[in-house]
Amino acid sequence: MRSERPFDTLVRLFPGLGWLRGYGRDTLSADALASLVTAILLIPQSLAYALLAGLPPEAGLYASIAPLIAYALFGSSRVLAVGPVAVISLMTAAAIGSLGLDNPADQVAAAGALALLSSVFLLLFGVFRLGSVANFLSRPVVDAFITASTVLIIASQLRHILGIDMHGATLPELAMTFVQSMSDINLAALVVGGISLAFLLGARSLLPGLLKGIGLGGPVADSLVRAAPAVLVAAATVTAWSLMLSERTGLAIVGSLPSGLPPLQFPNVELQTWRALLGPAALISLIGFVESVSVGQSLAAKHREHIQPNRELFGLGAANIAAAVTGGYPVTGGFARSVVNETAGARTPVAGVFTALLILLVAAFLTPAFHHLPKATLAATILAAIWRLADFKGAWDAWSYSRSDGAAAFLTLFGVLFLGIEFGLTLGVAVSVGLVLQRTMRPHWARLGQVPGTHHFRNIDRHDVIVSPHVVSLRVDSALYFANARFLEELIARIAAEEPEMTDLVLMFPAVNFVDASALGSLRAINSRLKEAGVRLHLSEVKGPVADGLIRAGLFDALTGQVFLSHYAALRTLDPSTTLRAEG
Amino acid sequence: MRSERPFDTLVRLFPGLGWLRGYGRDTLSADALASLVTAILLIPQSLAYALLAGLPPEAGLYASIAPLIAYALFGSSRVLAVGPVAVISLMTAAAIGSLGLDNPADQVAAAGALALLSSVFLLLFGVFRLGSVANFLSRPVVDAFITASTVLIIASQLRHILGIDMHGATLPELAMTFVQSMSDINLAALVVGGISLAFLLGARSLLPGLLKGIGLGGPVADSLVRAAPAVLVAAATVTAWSLMLSERTGLAIVGSLPSGLPPLQFPNVELQTWRALLGPAALISLIGFVESVSVGQSLAAKHREHIQPNRELFGLGAANIAAAVTGGYPVTGGFARSVVNETAGARTPVAGVFTALLILLVAAFLTPAFHHLPKATLAATILAAIWRLADFKGAWDAWSYSRSDGAAAFLTLFGVLFLGIEFGLTLGVAVSVGLVLQRTMRPHWARLGQVPGTHHFRNIDRHDVIVSPHVVSLRVDSALYFANARFLEELIARIAAEEPEMTDLVLMFPAVNFVDASALGSLRAINSRLKEAGVRLHLSEVKGPVADGLIRAGLFDALTGQVFLSHYAALRTLDPSTTLRAEG
Repeated sequence: MRSERPFDTLVRLFPGLGWLRGYGRDTLSADALASLVTAILLIPQSLAYALLAGLPPEAGLYASIAPLIAYALFGSSRVLAVGPVAVISLMTAAAIGSLGLDNPADQVAAAGALALLSSVFLLLFGVFRLGSVANFLSRPVVDAFITASTVLIIASQLRHILGIDMHGATLPELAMTFVQSMSDINLAALVVGGISLAFLLGARSLLPGLLKGIGLGGPVADSLVRAAPAVLVAAATVTAWSLMLSERTGLAIVGSLPSGLPPLQFPNVELQTWRALLGPAALISLIGFVESVSVGQSLAAKHREHIQPNRELFGLGAANIAAAVTGGYPVTGGFARSVVNETAGARTPVAGVFTALLILLVAAFLTPAFHHLPKATLAATILAAIWRLADFKGAWDAWSYSRSDGAAAFLTLFGVLFLGIEFGLTLGVAVSVGLVLQRTMRPHWARLGQVPGTHHFRNIDRHDVIVSPHVVSLRVDSALYFANARFLEELIARIAAEEPEMTDLVLMFPAVNFVDASALGSLRAINSRLKEAGVRLHLSEVKGPVADGLIRAGLFDALTGQVFLSHYAALRTLDPSTTLRAEG
Repeated sequence: MRSERPFDTLVRLFPGLGWLRGYGRDTLSADALASLVTAILLIPQSLAYALLAGLPPEAGLYASIAPLIAYALFGSSRVLAVGPVAVISLMTAAAIGSLGLDNPADQVAAAGALALLSSVFLLLFGVFRLGSVANFLSRPVVDAFITASTVLIIASQLRHILGIDMHGATLPELAMTFVQSMSDINLAALVVGGISLAFLLGARSLLPGLLKGIGLGGPVADSLVRAAPAVLVAAATVTAWSLMLSERTGLAIVGSLPSGLPPLQFPNVELQTWRALLGPAALISLIGFVESVSVGQSLAAKHREHIQPNRELFGLGAANIAAAVTGGYPVTGGFARSVVNETAGARTPVAGVFTALLILLVAAFLTPAFHHLPKATLAATILAAIWRLADFKGAWDAWSYSRSDGAAAFLTLFGVLFLGIEFGLTLGVAVSVGLVLQRTMRPHWARLGQVPGTHHFRNIDRHDVIVSPHVVSLRVDSALYFANARFLEELIARIAAEEPEMTDLVLMFPAVNFVDASALGSLRAINSRLKEAGVRLHLSEVKGPVADGLIRAGLFDALTGQVFLSHYAALRTLDPSTTLRAEG
């Protein structure tokens, strides 16, 4: 064997580093420029999403530093930009809100614990190569989930734009607290929030045309449009500071943020908090993974690359560990920032590292600059970024395309909005998986009779066949496992009830490719129930591997009847007279 | 139309009443005797399970009155006995414990809310004929869940037998509180609990032999053995009272119970409590339904009857509504009591009504008799009733029969014991469903080439075929839906990455029976990703109904390529030279 070169060792340890091969000055300057554009977008977003997650703003900055570097080392996509995203921030808020913690330090610790647990799930999925876990989520369920989450985010951000104390995890709760606090609307917040929103929406819809009018187009114009939130944040901060809006009108501002490096700490929470966060962490890892993979696949396709979902799990897992131990909260790949990163020219994960370093500089030295930033402005940047994600038409399209997809979508929508984000998502997944189990997993079966003059047996409903008066023949045309095992039990119970003359039942297994432990249990139950009803159970034409398993499990010994190599042999033994008559 | 007779109307409204036809004196006296035997078993059990659920003892009595009558009216099994059961009581304790309520009245209200929500799930499943929802639970998962729950129940009951303050919802929490309170062990509780347990186990293992020795056997001996808990309760109460054990040794006793009819009240809890109880209620309804159906099926099979799972959902739903509004908590059909009920000779649901009336009499007039009943004795009746349900060998058997069943079982076991009962169960269900999705739902596919001299296309890996240099042919042999849609996306992304020469991709759909909304979305994504990579996407041999759906959804219009009736026509159009060469 040849000895490995140091570079290859490095790439083997950090799969994200494969692009290092051939990294040059061109790539470096492209990455550096892209990182600047991405950082300018990410900084206001990070602060805003932390607010949405119910955490202090610096948690958003911290979640945009170490995780980016970790993803660059372990991730599989060259241009995916990870960090805090809207939906995951909302899920974080719901998870932490349900713990009933009052102390902000405890909430930050819980957010770190949530990120750590998410990374555990992601890494477990990765180790067991369960990237396919994303398949649990059907597209209409994910779309409905995003739509409903967006509505909840918008409703919850109205708090900052109206300057009132509305809160809650569902629409009814938000509506109730809205009504209770309606009289406290803060006019300054409303004006600042309204102008901010108008500015952002205007910048997006009008600015490209204006810039084109003065001869500016293409990437430069794009970058200017994307810098709008940063410009707004700066302008709003200066305005609020110079007019002393906070002191004079009670406008809520971000306030003091700590300056310095992100804290290096293990999230220290109680045992029962870890336990309470397990379910939310599982859902967050699932949604984060699905979102990240979709974004990554879209971006990779353009370059005829393809991302490996199982490696992506490690990249995201590493990013979340990094978030957990540096005062951040759960992160994933975001669509908007990845597109920005890519269209700004990012070529390798080095762009992500540069972005992280820029944000690190901000967190270390520039946090005092955000003191007077109005929360209403941050809320406006969230609204402007996400309002188009609410797509009720999607659920309607799903319904008109297929009833079962539509049902899953509407249940998810309704569930998230009215019953809570975790329950709604779980409901949607359960319903869509359940509908598929129901549609594809009811085994085909037939009662059989003997074709006159032959040794063959056919469906009694379709062929002119001869049927034994006391031996019932049943053929099951599917693997037997938990989703259809109970169906078999019920089918046989029904036949036993309908056929009082029956003394023997022969199950014909030529198409049974496997029998799982549930179906094995059902066969045992069927055997003993038929025994109590005075009916013997036989099997025929059992495939080799299936027979081996059933013998090892002791089913053949327990059987009240026998196992026959051919169905004809069974009937010849159990009802010779009818069989002989059938043969003519 | 003939007018309906009053009796038929009654039976139509209350399907449980079908047996009324032909009810006579014999049936009546059989039912009355069975109800007495069942009531004697149920009374101590009800008190004990309420304790396990963390509720005042009378909640157990109330849960054994109205629900039995409701089930008699709406249920489908003639002999199933509903009421509080061990596992559901433990799940109730976990659900209510997670709410952090300190006031017992709030806990009782929350238990009622939980029963009401469970009934909503049961009725929804019933209305939508989703009895098959029970199929989500594979047998190894259910067995492992029961085993782990039993361990948790035993561990939690040690509190009463040792007289210490250990508590928690997982083994680590219980162990930790055990260590903390170990020094407080109450000797009286230990002695009373130990003697109670020895008496119950002795009665079960030795009494039948003794009775047979003095010439008593059969049903009479059975009834005596089953009355052992009632005898124990009476003896322990009298002993504790006469020796004043509570006052002199600090032995925990049941204390004052209210006398009178069950309270008629709607569970009055806050909006966010309702929301927090949704998930637990869903799991409780699922487990309760599965347990009830298994018990019902076992009992029905003996008489060649079969129970209808969908009607069972209504029966259990009605029973839980009744529990919710009369101060009870979630109920379901229990195995032990149903067997007792049946072997004692119950013939119709009237036995359940009589049992309910007997317990009502106890609740109304005899509760003072339980004042001095030691909690250690109640804990012992639970331990004696359930310890044999812990069956670790089951998980091991599942593992040795099939790795995926075993994995699901061990994850459920571990999850319930160490991470909590709800998370563990959800984990087990997710894993078993996921493994089946993974095993059966990876679509078969083949890259195709033209068989020389023909218009046929076959798998390039198996046949000597001619392949176009720039047109890739791919046949997918399965319905396309959410569980395999992403697989298709990845497959095509991989092919696009591996075949830089490709200009056209033709998907051959002769075996695609349906395309759900997720797969539709994947086809759209594949289409637009291939477009960005400079590849056109075509379809061939699409079945009629599938084509109709795709046309309505606009996919055919959006396609960068064309739709061909035959795969040959596609290749003939897209790469005439190779096709002609292949034909020779």
